[in-house]
Amino acid sequence: MTGPRSVNVGVLGATGTVGQRFIALLAVHPYFIVHALGASPRSAGKPYAETVRWKQTDPIPNPVQGLVVQTCEPKYFKDCAVIFSGLDADVASDIEAAFRAADLAVFSNAKSYRRDPHVPLIVPLVNTAHLSIIPQQRALHSPPLKKGFIVTNANCSTTAVVIPLAALERAFGPIESCIITTMQAISGAGYPGVPSLDIFDNIVPYISGEEEKMEWETLKILGGVAEADDGTKEFDMHSKTPLRISASCNRVPVIEGHTETVSIRFSRRPPPSPQQVREALQAYSPDALAAGCPSAPRHAIFVHEEPDRPQPRLDRNYQLGAGVSVGRVRQCRVLDIKFVVLANNVNIGAATSSIINAEMAIVKGIVTA
Amino acid sequence: MTGPRSVNVGVLGATGTVGQRFIALLAVHPYFIVHALGASPRSAGKPYAETVRWKQTDPIPNPVQGLVVQTCEPKYFKDCAVIFSGLDADVASDIEAAFRAADLAVFSNAKSYRRDPHVPLIVPLVNTAHLSIIPQQRALHSPPLKKGFIVTNANCSTTAVVIPLAALERAFGPIESCIITTMQAISGAGYPGVPSLDIFDNIVPYISGEEEKMEWETLKILGGVAEADDGTKEFDMHSKTPLRISASCNRVPVIEGHTETVSIRFSRRPPPSPQQVREALQAYSPDALAAGCPSAPRHAIFVHEEPDRPQPRLDRNYQLGAGVSVGRVRQCRVLDIKFVVLANNVNIGAATSSIINAEMAIVKGIVTA
Amino acid sequence: MTGPRSVNVGVLGATGTVGQRFIALLAVHPYFIVHALGASPRSAGKPYAETVRWKQTDPIPNPVQGLVVQTCEPKYFKDCAVIFSGLDADVASDIEAAFRAADLAVFSNAKSYRRDPHVPLIVPLVNTAHLSIIPQQRALHSPPLKKGFIVTNANCSTTAVVIPLAALERAFGPIESCIITTMQAISGAGYPGVPSLDIFDNIVPYISGEEEKMEWETLKILGGVAEADDGTKEFDMHSKTPLRISASCNRVPVIEGHTETVSIRFSRRPPPSPQQVREALQAYSPDALAAGCPSAPRHAIFVHEEPDRPQPRLDRNYQLGAGVSVGRVRQCRVLDIKFVVLANNVNIGAATSSIINAEMAIVKGIVTA
Amino acid sequence: MTGPRSVNVGVLGATGTVGQRFIALLAVHPYFIVHALGASPRSAGKPYAETVRWKQTDPIPNPVQGLVVQTCEPKYFKDCAVIFSGLDADVASDIEAAFRAADLAVFSNAKSYRRDPHVPLIVPLVNTAHLSIIPQQRALHSPPLKKGFIVTNANCSTTAVVIPLAALERAFGPIESCIITTMQAISGAGYPGVPSLDIFDNIVPYISGEEEKMEWETLKILGGVAEADDGTKEFDMHSKTPLRISASCNRVPVIEGHTETVSIRFSRRPPPSPQQVREALQAYSPDALAAGCPSAPRHAIFVHEEPDRPQPRLDRNYQLGAGVSVGRVRQCRVLDIKFVVLANNVNIGAATSSIINAEMAIVKGIVTA
Repeated sequence: MTGPRSVNVGVLGATGTVGQRFIALLAVHPYFIVHALGASPRSAGKPYAETVRWKQTDPIPNPVQGLVVQTCEPKYFKDCAVIFSGLDADVASDIEAAFRAADLAVFSNAKSYRRDPHVPLIVPLVNTAHLSIIPQQRALHSPPLKKGFIVTNANCSTTAVVIPLAALERAFGPIESCIITTMQAISGAGYPGVPSLDIFDNIVPYISGEEEKMEWETLKILGGVAEADDGTKEFDMHSKTPLRISASCNRVPVIEGHTETVSIRFSRRPPPSPQQVREALQAYSPDALAAGCPSAPRHAIFVHEEPDRPQPRLDRNYQLGAGVSVGRVRQCRVLDIKFVVLANNVNIGAATSSIINAEMAIVKGIVTA
Repeated sequence: MTGPRSVNVGVLGATGTVGQRFIALLAVHPYFIVHALGASPRSAGKPYAETVRWKQTDPIPNPVQGLVVQTCEPKYFKDCAVIFSGLDADVASDIEAAFRAADLAVFSNAKSYRRDPHVPLIVPLVNTAHLSIIPQQRALHSPPLKKGFIVTNANCSTTAVVIPLAALERAFGPIESCIITTMQAISGAGYPGVPSLDIFDNIVPYISGEEEKMEWETLKILGGVAEADDGTKEFDMHSKTPLRISASCNRVPVIEGHTETVSIRFSRRPPPSPQQVREALQAYSPDALAAGCPSAPRHAIFVHEEPDRPQPRLDRNYQLGAGVSVGRVRQCRVLDIKFVVLANNVNIGAATSSIINAEMAIVKGIVTA
Repeated sequence: MTGPRSVNVGVLGATGTVGQRFIALLAVHPYFIVHALGASPRSAGKPYAETVRWKQTDPIPNPVQGLVVQTCEPKYFKDCAVIFSGLDADVASDIEAAFRAADLAVFSNAKSYRRDPHVPLIVPLVNTAHLSIIPQQRALHSPPLKKGFIVTNANCSTTAVVIPLAALERAFGPIESCIITTMQAISGAGYPGVPSLDIFDNIVPYISGEEEKMEWETLKILGGVAEADDGTKEFDMHSKTPLRISASCNRVPVIEGHTETVSIRFSRRPPPSPQQVREALQAYSPDALAAGCPSAPRHAIFVHEEPDRPQPRLDRNYQLGAGVSVGRVRQCRVLDIKFVVLANNVNIGAATSSIINAEMAIVKGIVTA
Repeated sequence: MTGPRSVNVGVLGATGTVGQRFIALLAVHPYFIVHALGASPRSAGKPYAETVRWKQTDPIPNPVQGLVVQTCEPKYFKDCAVIFSGLDADVASDIEAAFRAADLAVFSNAKSYRRDPHVPLIVPLVNTAHLSIIPQQRALHSPPLKKGFIVTNANCSTTAVVIPLAALERAFGPIESCIITTMQAISGAGYPGVPSLDIFDNIVPYISGEEEKMEWETLKILGGVAEADDGTKEFDMHSKTPLRISASCNRVPVIEGHTETVSIRFSRRPPPSPQQVREALQAYSPDALAAGCPSAPRHAIFVHEEPDRPQPRLDRNYQLGAGVSVGRVRQCRVLDIKFVVLANNVNIGAATSSIINAEMAIVKGIVTA
């Protein structure tokens, strides 16, 4: 399957941690072209290379170095068919609304609209079907939007766990309960983020709002879209078969890659065996791959056989950070099955998710390039 | 309550990580006097300061610096009323048996005898009552021992969690199930232990044998001692009210202090509230404190109110590492209650446990100094 | 020698990194009593324990927990015979001047007045003789001050190296040149200080202004006080025998303890041997010890014989961080001698220096308690 | 310039840290084909993927996964035109000699033959001209070798500094003295290498033998090849203009990338200015690039203008780790000029050096593929 020849994109929050990762990933993208960059007024008017504190291990891509940064106003992004937002939540709410109102297609990494009943919350290896709500979102505006909308992707720690959960629900039917402990990398907190004095030789067993996000977002993502008699669509929050999630979130001294221990109980009795679970995870192939999205991983879930994997330092760059790694699938003495999952929080946990979501929107004709 | 004037003790495995911690702690003990040191033949015959690779932040205690290290043979330890063993498991089995056979009282940190049905596995803030099995252990020898026996303490990750579990069972009756994720410090692996290349900027989601230890040891420690009609005593493994434990063990880049997330379900319906749990933990006072053991913490469990505590770097030295710290007591959406517990793996998780066990054995007259 | 019974002290910048260390150290001081605390308006009016983000490994000292924090105005500190300032440089300049003008004795850790020709820059194990300039400093005010003055201590990286340099100049005469490379701990940058993303698995080979401080402060500290014909005193900046310092400053992923490699050339030909240097360092006894200052280390410079010491994690708490550790004294193929020095940047490199300076001012009668 | 179509190579020490890096780098090489792998008898007979503890962030290259590992005997490597040795020094001496005696061309990373007067010690961006000694090395054997020889590359910490020193000597004539402090990554010690307990939150100011290597190797590399009247060639150890090197070597908690502070004094008076030095470093182009070696970096020395670079985490992968990064070029108050240099110790500091050396030997016809 082939994509379009080239699609201009804009990046909001271009100097931040997620914005930098957008730019690094887009530099090698087959058709997305970074056309406009938005950041705070402090950076606006300067060439990107002069205002960013670049923290990636590869140098700033050549074509972006001299691009002049703009403030985050829609007028500078008119020629962009896709807007990627790496904005902080405190400013994302207003700016993303303004971009949508200007009929621009926004793919956001911020939390601002994740709970909006008309905004899909999409982990691209799980629920791109939720894009079907976009026409309804557009119609709510007056006058209705033709091209504009907002799509959000999930919190990085949610993303890691919903991918294997989705694979298991597809194979074995509903999951009933799930207990998760996260060990989250410092890059998840942005820059400057976590002070070194707080996290060297230390664990912080708390990340503000994170557990609530995991416990709520998972329901929206794994749930379906219900259609009322009048055709109104609604996210069903997995309500047909209630799912209880309990998360304990920890910050750990790791630079990149969130590791999570997961215990689950299936509705189905008897539950699948560890070997059946391994096979189902390994076999999981998301729609985004079938649809030919170039940033989708060839393999969504890598299942390790060695007892001591996955590990963030060794596995976070697997498939450019677009897939997740699962290991230690075994029985749980309290629930049914337990395992470890690792996801690159800055790639599939943030920028890569937005990019695949945009690719999928193009495939589905929701964005026309 | 006063203790004895002075008690000679020997330390086996004196040059290792746990051995060094024994020596550091005993240097300020009110009545234990380090009298003899045992290590491998490579170290034997040399003054301690010349053969140890001392890794503690305080210098080697003066009286121990010149003490000549011996091989681990009972003949060199005849004058010791108490033997502390920090031996590695691969050699502990034979050496500790030989010391017991020589009628010496061994307090061991090794795993070798933890599953022995005649050896008590004691976390001193929990189950010193299990010392009652010692006469039966002595009687098994031929001829019966007068003074010799082996007492073990628990694995460091088990110790952390059984202290709050014991407090909660005392207050609210049996716990039914418990899911634990550990984030364990590198010092738990001894020296040289974990290679730096394996753990810098990394998590290793596996520690060989650790989950099995936690799932088994907890039952022995929290269970009672059953007495048959013929007077034979037996550890009941918490069998009156079955308890299911599920552990996921991880090595994290922290030097000292094991942090564990814990979710539990009580038998009792409705379960206690988070506030009741906090109060019960705070109020827990172990027998070892009432008995006047000088190394017992004044307060067994410190309950933090701040949302982001306990943290290993800030809390591991609380009460010289003899107590544990609990925080984030809150409801669990899947089981009843969840919280975080932190314990110093080298102190209460190892050396301090053995020392309080020995103090308690003196109080109970099992060791006569 | 005995000190006064009790001396009220105030701490400015009480909630910061250095302020917290002042409070931790003063909690066990034989005669200094923490009487008043100053911080920013944001903290003022609240009990200390409620406003500070305490980051020390020992808990907040009991008597200080409930002390109500004030703004940094002299009126709240009238009853303090000694003021310790852990203020940031951006506010220290005005506040410390106001305190001095209110006739208060200020011992400052800030850089603001270090280059003032009437303010002594004192490393207490080196140049307490520079306190002799205080009368001249007081006389400059109109009307002249009776009690007020400012004494500063040195930058933490300077402190580490001037102590052995002072010892060597005392023993062997002037040093001619000195090349230093520092490896400085993150705590030297305060809190929040260095973002974890900047320093995990990394070195930052630059600390703004640090090299200039080392190259300049060393001359003021190791130099003498010249007296003109009219009795005016002046710091001579080591000008009788010019001393050239070249520093390269690096931030490293270490929590506490600055490690520095030092190469020096003596004026004297032939230069002393490594063994003579070791002996001179070991024998060095500063005036503050002879004067009976209770916070002065019993031993100013510990000289390690093992080839791989000093190390920050093992040696930074030596003598409560009040002394320095030197190791690897050997010949330099380019200059004469090279060695490694380690100092606790938060103790002798900051708070402990101010405290000993104040003790010395009491001994000399410059402060009357 | 084009290279040969394909050249079979063997890798000795294939399971070690340097061996793994050889395999990762050779997987994308235009003409070297990994044909045979040698390791200890413990690994021999097993497919590579089953015996190696792979620690690279990219997976094991497909063609190598199933290759059966052999013991390090020449008979298994007969078809290899080039042998890369990542052997530990304790076994390298005998094995490499045996391979040379079997007429094989050995490019070694071990220290064993670096001081051999007939073995060139080559940093490929500096002194490939030293390959001219190979005929003499071959002739020493009886009967003389046709193809066999040993070429060594330098110690990783030496490699980092000699590249800028070579550039400066080419531009400004002899350097007279040089003081270096290294901050070396843990990967330089191999695997398991440095225990985590020794280096977390710590600096170790000593690496056994490292300073001697830097002080000696630099002279051999930067020196010339003198030819006696009888045509005998000899390394002159920079003796025409004596060069004094003084190194202080430290292990720091960084995974990869050695950072070094360097102060130098030129013979030439007046010395070049910092700006002249920057330009000369930037302009330096080694022979290996002109000769078309495919693994030679397009740019040997990147000169940073920002004050806080180079940093290992951000700069160690520059040009796949084949170039070095220099920053902070400025005047030294004691010698003439000081700067910071960073090199990837596992790439240009080890495997990449051997590979370029082999490429150069092919270009010069010393190896015929």
